[in-house]
Amino acid sequence: MRVHILHDSFKLSRPGGRWEISRAEVAIIGLGLIGGSIGLGLQDFSYAVGGWDIDPSAIDLALQRGAINGRFDSPEEAAEADLIVVATPPEAVVPTLERLAPHLRPETVITDCASVKAEIVGGVRRIAPPILPQFVGGHPMAGLHLSGIGNATWNLFEGAAWVLTPTAETDRQAYSTVSKMVHGLGAKVYLMDPAEHDRHVALLSHVPHLVAAQLMKEAIGLSYPQVSGGSWRDMTRVASSDPGLWTEIVMNNREAIAGVLRRLSTEMDQIATMVEEGDAFNVRRLFEDGREAKRRMGRES
Amino acid sequence: MRVHILHDSFKLSRPGGRWEISRAEVAIIGLGLIGGSIGLGLQDFSYAVGGWDIDPSAIDLALQRGAINGRFDSPEEAAEADLIVVATPPEAVVPTLERLAPHLRPETVITDCASVKAEIVGGVRRIAPPILPQFVGGHPMAGLHLSGIGNATWNLFEGAAWVLTPTAETDRQAYSTVSKMVHGLGAKVYLMDPAEHDRHVALLSHVPHLVAAQLMKEAIGLSYPQVSGGSWRDMTRVASSDPGLWTEIVMNNREAIAGVLRRLSTEMDQIATMVEEGDAFNVRRLFEDGREAKRRMGRES
Repeated sequence: MRVHILHDSFKLSRPGGRWEISRAEVAIIGLGLIGGSIGLGLQDFSYAVGGWDIDPSAIDLALQRGAINGRFDSPEEAAEADLIVVATPPEAVVPTLERLAPHLRPETVITDCASVKAEIVGGVRRIAPPILPQFVGGHPMAGLHLSGIGNATWNLFEGAAWVLTPTAETDRQAYSTVSKMVHGLGAKVYLMDPAEHDRHVALLSHVPHLVAAQLMKEAIGLSYPQVSGGSWRDMTRVASSDPGLWTEIVMNNREAIAGVLRRLSTEMDQIATMVEEGDAFNVRRLFEDGREAKRRMGRES
Repeated sequence: MRVHILHDSFKLSRPGGRWEISRAEVAIIGLGLIGGSIGLGLQDFSYAVGGWDIDPSAIDLALQRGAINGRFDSPEEAAEADLIVVATPPEAVVPTLERLAPHLRPETVITDCASVKAEIVGGVRRIAPPILPQFVGGHPMAGLHLSGIGNATWNLFEGAAWVLTPTAETDRQAYSTVSKMVHGLGAKVYLMDPAEHDRHVALLSHVPHLVAAQLMKEAIGLSYPQVSGGSWRDMTRVASSDPGLWTEIVMNNREAIAGVLRRLSTEMDQIATMVEEGDAFNVRRLFEDGREAKRRMGRES
């Protein structure tokens, strides 16, 4: 008998407090910061969580840290679970789901954690046998300046935004399952169209990472780069992010990012002219508009 | 008898612990966040600190908060002090010193706190009677996303960088006095040429403020601007800064800022092309260079 653990009651009690289920209920593929933190966060709910990673030492560490209760020897073994969470780098999501597809039961629910969505949802749409109805694209927006299972924490998503991008074909029950998991991890669900999501994150996340990297490069020639205040430290904090991961993220959201960068480039040039010409009125208006937008955004979030 | 409190021994004990000096030893002109915090920080050292601000209610609040021990009725009264700290907005520094100059004793030491230095040092050089030898330009790099005496704290400068820009004409004793005050407030002194300072802060502080404001403006049209992660929050924190103050700061450092903005604009455009063309190699190199620069900068500071 299958246990629909996530569908109706979120918590499952176990006789004698011991595991009596021989298969994983939740499977996590990709045991980095995000996958590991999901595993740690789910431990409160007494699921049997199985995990796999392309790096065997990440599986060892995930077991050791208690992020998973059992290991898979291949991603295909994850197909036994009721809920599969793909937390690999973006490039690996669709290939992973292609390997899983032939083994999946139709009632299994799948979600991913990639920071780009249009390409992935498009890729999932093309998988045979079709799995789009049981797939709910997801993007937890937390902790991306760190990486690796070593940095995973049970409360990484507490209070964070977590975008879900169901499509018209998505099964209602599948959406409900993923949404419950997200709430269970303490995050807040935001619903978006996949392309809308990508435009959002291009501006709100991807471009800031590129700008931070470029600002750091500009500072290389300074004689006292350490003479900086809090604004610089904050603005360039994400320059410490994993270059490999962020290159993948950027490569998956090229059109939206290039659009934002070109707009920003034009604006920087216009601001340079304003400053050169001593146009205090418009410089002040820029600062005032920025502050007002910041205040509104703070209130809404 | 004048008391050279700052020159030789930094702490002055007072008989019975009561004030017995009828004049201010330290004068603070401009009682905002910076002036107020300097006043609060100096209280540990038992100086008689007098203060003036163009806004009488700021003087009241500075007295009430204990940032100053007495009030001046005009900036000219500050001339009686051994050390004068001008903590007004940048535009007001040179006009204030022009008013003070006829009343100053030659041994009085003067410093300012403006975030731009070349224009101010140039302006001080032109003041008659000449006060350049007794003036040490300063720039405490802390707390500029807040403003007002209400936000002042005694430890605002603890661990912060504080640039001093003495010139070839600066009196050695004057430099030593200001340097001791900075150390007494817990900050670290960095020596720079005024123009070098301005190039530094254009990149490390002024341009980040303009970029943050512009990024916030870009986000105005989004349907869920609140769906953002820590990178966005950090990167746009300074968009809350005081528009009036920052317009003045920018207007005083126009050439250096415009130069950095134009370079950044060109770079943003080139990065857009890299991203559009799917040039993962160079995107990754950008992230790697940025991370390496961030790591080096972190180690040096």
